[in-house]
Amino acid sequence: MGTFSEDLFLTNATGKRLYEQYAKDMPIIDYHCHLLPQEIYENKRFEDLGEMWLAHDHYKWRAMRTFGIEEKYITGDASYHDKYLKFAEILPQMIGNPIYIWCALELKRFFGIDEALCAENAERIYAETKRLIEEKNMTPRWCMEVSNVRVVSTTEDPVDTLEYHLKMKDDPSIKTKILSAFRPDKAFYCEKPAYREYLPQLAAVSGVAIDSFDGLMAALEQRLAFFKQLGTMISDDGIEDFTWAEHTDAEIEAVFQKARRGEALCAHEVNQYRSAFLLRMGALYHKYGFVMQLHIGTYQGANKSREASIGVACGFDCTDDSTRIKSVGELLDRLTKAGTLPKTILYPLNANNIETFAILAAGFCEGGTRAKVQLGAPWWFNDQAYGIRRQFEAVANLYPISLSVGMLTDSRSFLSYPRHELYRRVLCSYLGDLVERGEYFSDEKELEKTVKNICYNNAKEFFGL
Amino acid sequence: MGTFSEDLFLTNATGKRLYEQYAKDMPIIDYHCHLLPQEIYENKRFEDLGEMWLAHDHYKWRAMRTFGIEEKYITGDASYHDKYLKFAEILPQMIGNPIYIWCALELKRFFGIDEALCAENAERIYAETKRLIEEKNMTPRWCMEVSNVRVVSTTEDPVDTLEYHLKMKDDPSIKTKILSAFRPDKAFYCEKPAYREYLPQLAAVSGVAIDSFDGLMAALEQRLAFFKQLGTMISDDGIEDFTWAEHTDAEIEAVFQKARRGEALCAHEVNQYRSAFLLRMGALYHKYGFVMQLHIGTYQGANKSREASIGVACGFDCTDDSTRIKSVGELLDRLTKAGTLPKTILYPLNANNIETFAILAAGFCEGGTRAKVQLGAPWWFNDQAYGIRRQFEAVANLYPISLSVGMLTDSRSFLSYPRHELYRRVLCSYLGDLVERGEYFSDEKELEKTVKNICYNNAKEFFGL
Amino acid sequence: MGTFSEDLFLTNATGKRLYEQYAKDMPIIDYHCHLLPQEIYENKRFEDLGEMWLAHDHYKWRAMRTFGIEEKYITGDASYHDKYLKFAEILPQMIGNPIYIWCALELKRFFGIDEALCAENAERIYAETKRLIEEKNMTPRWCMEVSNVRVVSTTEDPVDTLEYHLKMKDDPSIKTKILSAFRPDKAFYCEKPAYREYLPQLAAVSGVAIDSFDGLMAALEQRLAFFKQLGTMISDDGIEDFTWAEHTDAEIEAVFQKARRGEALCAHEVNQYRSAFLLRMGALYHKYGFVMQLHIGTYQGANKSREASIGVACGFDCTDDSTRIKSVGELLDRLTKAGTLPKTILYPLNANNIETFAILAAGFCEGGTRAKVQLGAPWWFNDQAYGIRRQFEAVANLYPISLSVGMLTDSRSFLSYPRHELYRRVLCSYLGDLVERGEYFSDEKELEKTVKNICYNNAKEFFGL
Repeated sequence: MGTFSEDLFLTNATGKRLYEQYAKDMPIIDYHCHLLPQEIYENKRFEDLGEMWLAHDHYKWRAMRTFGIEEKYITGDASYHDKYLKFAEILPQMIGNPIYIWCALELKRFFGIDEALCAENAERIYAETKRLIEEKNMTPRWCMEVSNVRVVSTTEDPVDTLEYHLKMKDDPSIKTKILSAFRPDKAFYCEKPAYREYLPQLAAVSGVAIDSFDGLMAALEQRLAFFKQLGTMISDDGIEDFTWAEHTDAEIEAVFQKARRGEALCAHEVNQYRSAFLLRMGALYHKYGFVMQLHIGTYQGANKSREASIGVACGFDCTDDSTRIKSVGELLDRLTKAGTLPKTILYPLNANNIETFAILAAGFCEGGTRAKVQLGAPWWFNDQAYGIRRQFEAVANLYPISLSVGMLTDSRSFLSYPRHELYRRVLCSYLGDLVERGEYFSDEKELEKTVKNICYNNAKEFFGL
Repeated sequence: MGTFSEDLFLTNATGKRLYEQYAKDMPIIDYHCHLLPQEIYENKRFEDLGEMWLAHDHYKWRAMRTFGIEEKYITGDASYHDKYLKFAEILPQMIGNPIYIWCALELKRFFGIDEALCAENAERIYAETKRLIEEKNMTPRWCMEVSNVRVVSTTEDPVDTLEYHLKMKDDPSIKTKILSAFRPDKAFYCEKPAYREYLPQLAAVSGVAIDSFDGLMAALEQRLAFFKQLGTMISDDGIEDFTWAEHTDAEIEAVFQKARRGEALCAHEVNQYRSAFLLRMGALYHKYGFVMQLHIGTYQGANKSREASIGVACGFDCTDDSTRIKSVGELLDRLTKAGTLPKTILYPLNANNIETFAILAAGFCEGGTRAKVQLGAPWWFNDQAYGIRRQFEAVANLYPISLSVGMLTDSRSFLSYPRHELYRRVLCSYLGDLVERGEYFSDEKELEKTVKNICYNNAKEFFGL
Repeated sequence: MGTFSEDLFLTNATGKRLYEQYAKDMPIIDYHCHLLPQEIYENKRFEDLGEMWLAHDHYKWRAMRTFGIEEKYITGDASYHDKYLKFAEILPQMIGNPIYIWCALELKRFFGIDEALCAENAERIYAETKRLIEEKNMTPRWCMEVSNVRVVSTTEDPVDTLEYHLKMKDDPSIKTKILSAFRPDKAFYCEKPAYREYLPQLAAVSGVAIDSFDGLMAALEQRLAFFKQLGTMISDDGIEDFTWAEHTDAEIEAVFQKARRGEALCAHEVNQYRSAFLLRMGALYHKYGFVMQLHIGTYQGANKSREASIGVACGFDCTDDSTRIKSVGELLDRLTKAGTLPKTILYPLNANNIETFAILAAGFCEGGTRAKVQLGAPWWFNDQAYGIRRQFEAVANLYPISLSVGMLTDSRSFLSYPRHELYRRVLCSYLGDLVERGEYFSDEKELEKTVKNICYNNAKEFFGL
């Protein structure tokens, strides 16, 4: 049996050197994730590796289902120990999959384990990790500190009171800065049943009456200002699919009123609402100095019947392919015309779109701001070595990757920080290849700057941290 | 001039070892092809290499047309000898094309020829292969036996009497198990002229009156049961493009009656019919324990005028790009909801879709069945080293490739079995790269299991052979 | 600091040999570019490297905007010297981008400079290049001659009088043959405001009354015949997006009359007009022996507000993703049916489409013409090493790349000819890899033929030069 290699992903000498010298020790700004602030605040010790790995991680749940494992051991009532054993059995058959590498990195970095997990050593590794969890008092904050994480941004709904964020804001015992991204998805999906119930909640927390679309926007602005007080400077707009539709204020008001009454909306009305909503939110982000993050192309709950019985965000989401680039272009163009285009990061989930989106982003950059509109890091189904390398290779041709704000985990697990290490290794290997093939021969200090900027400095500057 | 290399596609030492030790000698299950059962049954000796290569192979015909060769030498009345000579002339200019490698592999494996075919040696190789065809009595069955093929599944229409399959079923002289896939395409394309003529044929052979959509489904069920008696456990649904459309039973009945009368159908009616048809067929496949194979994205007869004059399946088909993932997702979701989702293999022809389809497949897997919904092998325009490697690299990130049922030839030629060899070489090379880059370090026995499963065992288990 | 490497992109020994022996010294046919014939005719010396690089090149302008450089230094009134300095500052941060390599190649080939340009050496290199521009009397024609360019085809509107082309036609002082491609875009976009103003111009220059669609086509035919007299044998049809629509002559006439009166057209009318226009133009190209070049998939002026203030072709164009393959297929099929399909080159701008377009092209080839319908070179956002390599790798599987007419610059800069060198290096490296991996082992003379054909001979033959 082999062991973990410290040359992982570093396939050339220059890349190894770049990683060691410039990338490895840079701190982490994890500007987008799905961690629960309460868990950070309460900082409870984890029960075992089963909990750390399998409590929330729908990547692993999906994989377990492909092997035909019973739901009991996935999201069901089996113990974390038993779930962990089931997972350990299949892991050796996950060759080429990021879960294999993530687990290997997490075992190595957090527990010092060099071996590959398998059925045979699963109980031993279980016991060893359980001992270490106790011995080192492994908690959410410990994971962040040991991973050199300076900033974490969770993502919350506008109605969120940010209770735990506020508690942590001035708590000197927390070494990592915990921010929140503003995620107004419930106000975006006017056609979903939750919309109708959501409006009164938003009205209550904001103190703004929501009896018109303008009222809705005023309430959201109130919350945006509240989030900003905490230090938030980033949005998180989740857009399943988007088709630009022309609209008038009167039409949007009519759609709003129908949605508020719970009446069915046709596709065109939904598109009009979405177009208007993103225009208005974009202007608000611009006004408050926020970076707008557009996550585009999820196919939420493709397996609706299982989502209904098992739950949301349990591994039944897929990737959509219906959003056309002109819809996003139209949005950026209108915001540009109105002088209200905020700094923007575009995250197409469908990897077929990374080039068209990178090209679009460059078309909306302009004087005064570095990388005003840029492509986000490979995301969700794309955040592995393959997807990261592909994005560097493809996008570097279309948009200077040296301007990228770099990696984020997008994760629900406190053990996910080695994904930044993985990203940095792939980055350095990619750059090293260019150097060794003669495709780059500028001064070493430029390489240093590029690596450090992508790992940390660009995010620090772009988000104003 | 160089010669054939036994290191073909094996670009690393680990991959070579994996191929030699675990892949090379595994038997073949060719679970989808277009061979003619009559030719297998009659087992006639081939006239010459021209017939073996150029009698049915529209891949080669397309290539010859790109070189401007007259149709006479492609599908016309020139002799196989002369067609072969024309083909031999262009082959050296096919660098990077699978036809080049397939021919090289076939010359090597069946005839022991190491040289690259070209205009200069064409007559000599013609004579040598003709002599060997006689000497070794090369027939369809010989090709299968020498290639270690255990099972072959041709594909037939429901109205087929399976005459030759039945004759071969209990014939001990046939070493290879010959099955048939159930291909109800003529009943699927209700808008095509052939539909109207087809219904009475199906009614006659099934003994079921087809005067309603339910009647049609009953007739298909009768045929499915008949195919199952032969040992068939697989469908072959060819879907050009597919847009999910909601529908009621009454609407489908109305569309059926219009189609039956030969009346023109609008796009929405066609979509409704297709949606209903696939739902009903899926439920039947589930009931009879069939694996549903969905081949999605052909652009049949793009060059309609040449198809009309030269023929169907003569090289005028292309790839479509209009099917959206949500249409396929809706189908799988409805079947899941109804509890009638069969084991399913998704074959998107458009390579842009392999990731979205792999993601979708994982979203519909569940306890009790390994890889219940999975992505099929690279197909038609994608079944070369490039497409195979691309699929491993991309899909492994999204779905465990160790669960794949592996390669099929999809071929019309008895010489095509080396495509399994090609696939296995690319597979082992891909896995070897992962090992050598440190991205996989589990026990050797796990690698052995993965290789053997993909080459043979997964197909054996999944299809219940 | 490193220096320029003569092994650039040549990553294997065979590729190096192929490049040195067969590719390097082949002349260039640059059959599609956007150079201004007046500049060639007048042959003025360039002021400085700033002018040579930054006067027209929207690739560089886009890149500068991503770095947040003020528009003054991009398209504004700063001096070329100052623009050059701003550009030199960002160039070292363009790792992986074609602009980095193009600049390196241009500095090396035209000025003998081995260093990488950066802020520190920018003034010195500015002075050195300025001295060389004077000393060597660097002019447009000098650039062409020193680059071994035999033929250049600019692209002009049908109303163009070809004044400078005619002047150069029989001028023995011009070593390079200067042709013009026929680009009827203004007659194609019937829905744009410019259409209405364009018709009288075309009527005037052609002497044909344009009061009907037939009149328009007659006027275009008159101009096509005029262009042909100059030696033109190529069209340049720029198609943003294209959806085939059935139509009658009467419907097209009605659309034409509405467009002529400046009335708004619905999407269906625009699609009908585009379908009819391309059918008619295709037939004309066929009649006059032209090669039809279809450039498909631009998203013109995505950033409309900046295009309005800064200008057309200033870096605000992007890539569209809405054209479906069946629309292009329908066009080719109708032309085939009518017996009027000209030699055709398909240039999809969206790289997602290269495979479907290559497959489509092969489906319309036929006896008598080599590569009658073929895929064009990677274009605009794809014309770097990455895009070129990707196209070779993907397309070789689907269409014999040995038939390709090879590279073009598509450029607005006289320094762009090293892009042919880059293409040839990538080509030879790609072929060398195939040889070294055992995937090609035919005779050396076949490799020689393939390389020389793609570099030069195929274009010479295909365009009848």
